[in-house]
Order: sequence, then structure tokens, then C-alpha cells
Amino acid sequence: MHTESADPADLVRPLLRVRQVREFTDEPVDRAALDALADAGRWSGSSKNNQPWRFVVITDRGTIRRLADGGMPFTRALQTATAAIAITIPEQPGRKISHAYDEGRAAERILVAASFLGLGAGIAWLSGDGRAAAGAILGLPEDRFVRTIVAIGHPTEAARRPKSDRGEARLPREETVFAERWPTS
Amino acid sequence: MHTESADPADLVRPLLRVRQVREFTDEPVDRAALDALADAGRWSGSSKNNQPWRFVVITDRGTIRRLADGGMPFTRALQTATAAIAITIPEQPGRKISHAYDEGRAAERILVAASFLGLGAGIAWLSGDGRAAAGAILGLPEDRFVRTIVAIGHPTEAARRPKSDRGEARLPREETVFAERWPTS
Repeated sequence: MHTESADPADLVRPLLRVRQVREFTDEPVDRAALDALADAGRWSGSSKNNQPWRFVVITDRGTIRRLADGGMPFTRALQTATAAIAITIPEQPGRKISHAYDEGRAAERILVAASFLGLGAGIAWLSGDGRAAAGAILGLPEDRFVRTIVAIGHPTEAARRPKSDRGEARLPREETVFAERWPTS
Repeated sequence: MHTESADPADLVRPLLRVRQVREFTDEPVDRAALDALADAGRWSGSSKNNQPWRFVVITDRGTIRRLADGGMPFTRALQTATAAIAITIPEQPGRKISHAYDEGRAAERILVAASFLGLGAGIAWLSGDGRAAAGAILGLPEDRFVRTIVAIGHPTEAARRPKSDRGEARLPREETVFAERWPTS
């Protein structure tokens, strides 16, 4: 897949282009694309390969809108999404940190995969009441909850454009990447 | 980047091929590759784009071995790594879950980027004493800690081979991906 002469910066550029999308057109997402996104999620790494997540792939727009209603404003991406993947996690008080970490890994894989497919995706983050409402809507058992729902769809033209000015979307490299040890000031 | 006729399964396949690597050859990692990996990390998404992580890129093998010693067996990948990226996170008791999630996202991006570069990478996970020891080795300030160190290098031939039999590395799709809502049994 890679050649010795390829510039590493070029090879990782598709990853740097992944961005959160929160506004989608009405065009539905193909079933094959949703299967590929779910596969990207379930092939994520996890602590001791324990695979804590179970994914619910949702295409019913009524369900997606009800999920959006329960968690505004952090579920805004679900208002126009034509598909969604809920990442459900077991309720295990001793594993909260590990599960949040694995959940983040799976969410990131799905965002990256969506970008590779030319789709847009954005994380809807549920807290408190939104989480309980979503659990009821999806029929989750008591030992499982949902906090991340990845909103998926075809991005609008506006959503395809960068939201920040050039150089503004992230802190500069010299403030975030250090060599060998923490810098002494 | 994508064509309408491309099979989504083909487009995401490079992601499914990403695996944890824990044994590396002596060949050093190019500086340009390390820069690209650090960029992949710092371009990760984060909650409200708050970018909590700061990355320390380490190539000194003495430092990498000392980091390995502090956290065995979960730091085994650092025993042979020729480079490493420590993901440091602020100590903020109210944001533990959000930070763990963002840390997982950044770690996953770096693993994916390493795979795209033909390199191997594996997560070394520090707990308790290992975390304190690593903080001291890296000279972290008191308000910041490190839990993830991504070990990086050129994988050995053995490490390139799948560690599981075909179909054994992940639970089957029908046990992890559900349509529209939780299945009734």
C-alpha cells in the first residue's frame, strides 16, 4: 500500500481532512455504506480486545429525529441526518474510563470511514436525560447505555466548507507537539 | 477521492487492516513520518474542539525503555519501539470521561496513520505507578498526566502476521451490529 518514496504528509492527509459534519442533504445513505461504517466501528481496537460496544444502525428518520430532540443542542447533527449509528456501552462502574476511551476510538474510526466514503458524520453526545430517552427509544437493556450517536449523511455544500479560517481549526504544532520531554519554559 | 462506483467495503478496508503492533525491528522511524503521526494526532476531533492533549514525540531509546519498565506488562510494546508518542492530558476531575474519550480518539488516529505509513503502532496503557513514573521521566507539570503512550516502529515479520485465526479477531457482525433498535430475544 505504501511506497518508500511517498511523502508521509501526503499519506496521512486524508486523515487530516476528516471533519465533523452536522448538516446533511435529504439523499439517503446506501446500505452498503452503512455496513462498511459499522464494520469500521466493530474492527476498532479496544482494551484487551474486549469489544464493549454494540452498534445500532438507524435509518428510520422518525427515530433519528426523536433521538435529536432528546439531547439538544449537542444532538443537532441528528436533526438532518439520514442515518445514524448509536454506540452502546455496558454500565460497569469500574470501567467508565476504559469504556469511554474505547467508545472514542470506535467513534473516531466511523468518522474516518465516513470521510473515506465521501459521506459526512458528526458525533452527537448525549448526557443525562438525553441518554435515558435514547435508551428507551432504542429499547436498550438496563445494563447498557448510549452516549455517542454518530450522525451520518451526505454533507450539504455549506457543511463541506471549512468552518475555520486557514490555520485556525487547531492550535499550532509548536504548542501541541513537543520533542523528547515537556518543554522547560 | 471516492468514485460513485467504488465498493464501500473496499474503501474502508485499509481501516480494518489496522492492528496493534507490539514487536518492532531496530530500524529507526523517519522524522517526516513522526511529524505526520503527530499531525494526525493533533488534527483529531475533541469535545468542543478543546484539544486537551499535548503530544511528546520520543526517539531516545533510553527514555522509551525507561517508560516501558514503569508499566509492565501493559507497556510491552515500548520494549522494542524505536519511537513513541506520549498523549498527555490535563488533570481535571470533572472532565475525566470526556478526556478519556478524546484521548482514545487521538490514539486511534495515530494507529490508523501509522498503518497508512506502513509502520506499526501499539497502545501502551499506564496506570497508577507507571503513570507517575512516566510523568517524572517526561518532566510533565503537576496539572498534566500521561496514560497512553503509542509505541511506534517498523513491525517485525511475526508482528505483521494476524494474531488470530481468520474470523476470530472480532465478534461476528450479527452479535455486534443491530438494525434500528436493540433486538428482542
